[in-house]
Amino acid sequence: MEFIDERTQDGVTRRSFSVTVAGERVPAVIWAPAGARGPRPLVLMGHGGSQHKKTPGISARAAIYARKFGYATLAIDAPGHGDRVSREAAEAVARDTLARVTGQVASGWTPERLKLMAERTASAVPEWNAALAAAVGFDFVGSDGPVGYWGVSMGTAIGVPFVAQAPRITAAVFGLAGLRPGAAEFEAAAQQITIPVEFVFQWDDAVATREQGVALFDAFGSVQKTMHINPGGHMDIPDYEGASWERFFTRHLGVAAAAVEHAAAAE
Amino acid sequence: MEFIDERTQDGVTRRSFSVTVAGERVPAVIWAPAGARGPRPLVLMGHGGSQHKKTPGISARAAIYARKFGYATLAIDAPGHGDRVSREAAEAVARDTLARVTGQVASGWTPERLKLMAERTASAVPEWNAALAAAVGFDFVGSDGPVGYWGVSMGTAIGVPFVAQAPRITAAVFGLAGLRPGAAEFEAAAQQITIPVEFVFQWDDAVATREQGVALFDAFGSVQKTMHINPGGHMDIPDYEGASWERFFTRHLGVAAAAVEHAAAAE
Repeated sequence: MEFIDERTQDGVTRRSFSVTVAGERVPAVIWAPAGARGPRPLVLMGHGGSQHKKTPGISARAAIYARKFGYATLAIDAPGHGDRVSREAAEAVARDTLARVTGQVASGWTPERLKLMAERTASAVPEWNAALAAAVGFDFVGSDGPVGYWGVSMGTAIGVPFVAQAPRITAAVFGLAGLRPGAAEFEAAAQQITIPVEFVFQWDDAVATREQGVALFDAFGSVQKTMHINPGGHMDIPDYEGASWERFFTRHLGVAAAAVEHAAAAE
Repeated sequence: MEFIDERTQDGVTRRSFSVTVAGERVPAVIWAPAGARGPRPLVLMGHGGSQHKKTPGISARAAIYARKFGYATLAIDAPGHGDRVSREAAEAVARDTLARVTGQVASGWTPERLKLMAERTASAVPEWNAALAAAVGFDFVGSDGPVGYWGVSMGTAIGVPFVAQAPRITAAVFGLAGLRPGAAEFEAAAQQITIPVEFVFQWDDAVATREQGVALFDAFGSVQKTMHINPGGHMDIPDYEGASWERFFTRHLGVAAAAVEHAAAAE
């Protein structure tokens, strides 16, 4: 692990570091309450296609989780994303992704695209493992605390195979993805997942059909799993689903002891 | 309206009264915080088949809503239920219902059963209208406040046609029901509903198939609607869905002004 820098804003400290996996430097970032000491729940957040580890949704949620629950939040750049590609390449991916998720072009699971995604996932799983191992080495996280995963769209495409082989993770939010016919490895990974899952799905998503979404929900091996369906497209998850994720994680991961003390002191 | 009695327990007052509709006396009950004065949100709760207006789930939720949010909660006995039938008849219905919802007998939408349900709904809608009109006459409810509806299973079978024609109701929780092929009137009622809806559905429900559940969700005319799917049967709604209903209602109905003052004073 290579430590890069840290900055503190509004009571939350963000530390940047990197791990190296198979010769690739993987940029990572971890948020925690400023001055955090001792173990606390950790949430891993996997960004969507064309996004990056500090994408606004993740940054905002990480700060809120730190302030409200005392959580640490870890994010990494997926292969071919964020600081791992040039700005020009990232912008080209963003244009392509926007066209697909808004249905301007057919989602087009071409063989080339499926191959690219399979390679990306194959790289991303050990990268997440390495980043998680580094994160639990921070004294403000610790190696015994509960760990959750959040990731929709590409964050699910990568997250399902990752979570399936990560016994430390005890609760996961997935969504905006489906099970395509013939995606046998992905289906097998979903079946191996037995932890509580909240699966958020948009009923008019250009990226996955309703049937594919329901098929992925059905594939999860979890006894406790809930699918939340809302009308609208890939970018239209209602705000109240974000509030639901907070309750899902606090239900399963608890809150940091320090967060309880802090809340009591504030009353 | 005939007032019957009131009793107060643990800070919640329950008043029993009745309204008479088409010559039928309809027993009703309304819960509110003890000593409640002035307008507050009102939630109507429609019980399930074989249950009654004070069935444990409704009684418990009404008390919690009164204490936490300052709400009033109204429930009535559906036709052929509660105090409107003999204990022997109620017990026979309960045995029949239990066998159906647990899948011991086929759910069997026979023509006789569909006719009975249609008659029950036709009676229940004006009864709910009369009970709501009486409830908003209480000074602790008032005629201008927000009104929500909660009802699953038979509470949805009756609730959808009722809510469709009740402009006072601005948010509704439905569930444990589906749209059967040929149920044109019920489908039309669902299409007329345009208020926010949270629809809770059990994926292995002996009473409605997955397709019928999804078809009912699709039929609602609401822009803002969410379907929550959980594994398990008719009786297996997870506790956290109850917590989700609380947030749904407070999001759409607000909380009573007095409840805010009370919460502030308690800190």
